[in-house]
Amino acid sequence: MRPGIETIRACGGLHRFIGWDRALLTDSGGFQVWSLGELRKISEEGTEFRSHVDGSLRFLSPEVSMEVQAALGSDIVMVFDECAPGKAPHDEARRSMELTARWARRSRDRFDELQRVEADTGRTLVEGLSGAQALFGIVQGATHLDLRRESLERNLEIGFDGYAIGGLSVGEEKSVMWDVVAEIAPLVPADRPRYLMGVGTPEDLLEGVVRGVDMFDCVLPTRNGRNGQAFTSRGKLNIKNTQWGSDLRPLDETCCCSVCRRHSRAYLRHLYLSGEMLSRISLTHHNLAFFLDTMRRVRQSIRSGKFTQFRREFTEMFNSGVE
Amino acid sequence: MRPGIETIRACGGLHRFIGWDRALLTDSGGFQVWSLGELRKISEEGTEFRSHVDGSLRFLSPEVSMEVQAALGSDIVMVFDECAPGKAPHDEARRSMELTARWARRSRDRFDELQRVEADTGRTLVEGLSGAQALFGIVQGATHLDLRRESLERNLEIGFDGYAIGGLSVGEEKSVMWDVVAEIAPLVPADRPRYLMGVGTPEDLLEGVVRGVDMFDCVLPTRNGRNGQAFTSRGKLNIKNTQWGSDLRPLDETCCCSVCRRHSRAYLRHLYLSGEMLSRISLTHHNLAFFLDTMRRVRQSIRSGKFTQFRREFTEMFNSGVE
Repeated sequence: MRPGIETIRACGGLHRFIGWDRALLTDSGGFQVWSLGELRKISEEGTEFRSHVDGSLRFLSPEVSMEVQAALGSDIVMVFDECAPGKAPHDEARRSMELTARWARRSRDRFDELQRVEADTGRTLVEGLSGAQALFGIVQGATHLDLRRESLERNLEIGFDGYAIGGLSVGEEKSVMWDVVAEIAPLVPADRPRYLMGVGTPEDLLEGVVRGVDMFDCVLPTRNGRNGQAFTSRGKLNIKNTQWGSDLRPLDETCCCSVCRRHSRAYLRHLYLSGEMLSRISLTHHNLAFFLDTMRRVRQSIRSGKFTQFRREFTEMFNSGVE
Repeated sequence: MRPGIETIRACGGLHRFIGWDRALLTDSGGFQVWSLGELRKISEEGTEFRSHVDGSLRFLSPEVSMEVQAALGSDIVMVFDECAPGKAPHDEARRSMELTARWARRSRDRFDELQRVEADTGRTLVEGLSGAQALFGIVQGATHLDLRRESLERNLEIGFDGYAIGGLSVGEEKSVMWDVVAEIAPLVPADRPRYLMGVGTPEDLLEGVVRGVDMFDCVLPTRNGRNGQAFTSRGKLNIKNTQWGSDLRPLDETCCCSVCRRHSRAYLRHLYLSGEMLSRISLTHHNLAFFLDTMRRVRQSIRSGKFTQFRREFTEMFNSGVE
């Protein structure tokens, strides 16, 4: 919607537009349109919705989504799916899963055509990447394990570069989410990335990893950072709390990020209460550093065969509370 | 007012509180209280005003201001002055200038006492600085040259580490401001810094330098940056303009700052219109880089005896307009 796909194309694709020469993953718009609620109308062909910017009528389909993502030139393209409500009954979840499966086929076909004509826009060649766009399928089926298995089978039949588990973290119980992940992740071939969409907290990352998940995405580190919440090795820290008023320690005494090397809780609290954006920038920066560092430690512990020990120690520390 | 001087003291002074190990200059609060208008009451003793935070009654005087600035531990402390309105008639400006002169004496005395007992809080020792706080006097007298000269004489009698010209850039004609600067700056001993307070645009900096000014301060690069205005070698650029919609060039094609090395006008415009703080951060960063670079070039041109040529070329370019 903003600035519009023609602008991005004119600017040579998303990498060049935002000045980022590393990997980019773009979502298909399926979940985003779904989250509009009453503003959208779904048919076999695709989804009609009203722009939140100017109220105009817009249309997204598997084909349109693939065309948009080719114009963006992202490294990982997601298929256009439909997301059923977290508590959808079996029949509704089946209808939705089957529609998603047909849309996955159409996404694959249009994606392949676009790749053949090299339609992706000015994608930066990144060392260690193939130079072509990758397409990921999305497993749906709400909380129903039989539908989830069937959805994965249909995705595997079509064949994708990676497989995502979608439609979770949308209001269902957490235990139900982990049941779905535990059921599906191990069924994805080991040489393909497994991606759990929209998850989660630092502890969720470990819960996902232990069930075989490789990739995550979430607004948590940035949105919570903007709202004054820092994630630390000893749990969450609310920068607004009075107790940090004269506390010269960094957000996290074990963190090496540029914010923790330079600024105290007292200063970040003062900036936050004064409405200075530097506080929100700093908390966001720290949170991203903390999440990235956590995943770095996860990979390291797996390589050295000590993931179980790392998970226990991390969780114990994370629940010990910030002092 | 926020976070309060006791907090700063408890945190080891301003350098440590904000994580900045280079020079800091703090204003005395004289101008800030003056700008409150009806909310303040001035007497021989000092100024009473209402806190904009909680409405409580507060008091500032030369002595209190020196104590606060000692607690802050800034490298350059400004005397507590009274600022007359830009268009104050002669008698009002004289009364104000004489009060400022008496306050300058009291500021000097209290400052010296505080220095003797080493009251300044945990000031970082910065290479090339003396390790003691410096105190600057402020020349007042509105637009009346005789009062300005008398104000400077009184300041010189007391003796300061540097001399500021205050009470300008507060609504008077620019030509009047430059007349005052041209009159006063050359009368300041050459071995003392001359500081023009609250000025100004890039062109103002050159106008000040040509009249003998060494130091400036202004909100322009940061405030205008937050509001979408970039300063460039070819003049001002409004990032909101439609013409930058697909413009892949940096804000300033001759600028080496990290924003200009990475981001295009098109992207910064998109971020600005989307309400993303990254745009305001980036424009602020660029503007500060531009102002600092301009002063760097000023010093270089003075050292090589080519300031007049630099000033002509800079001004010509600055007025050529951004394309």
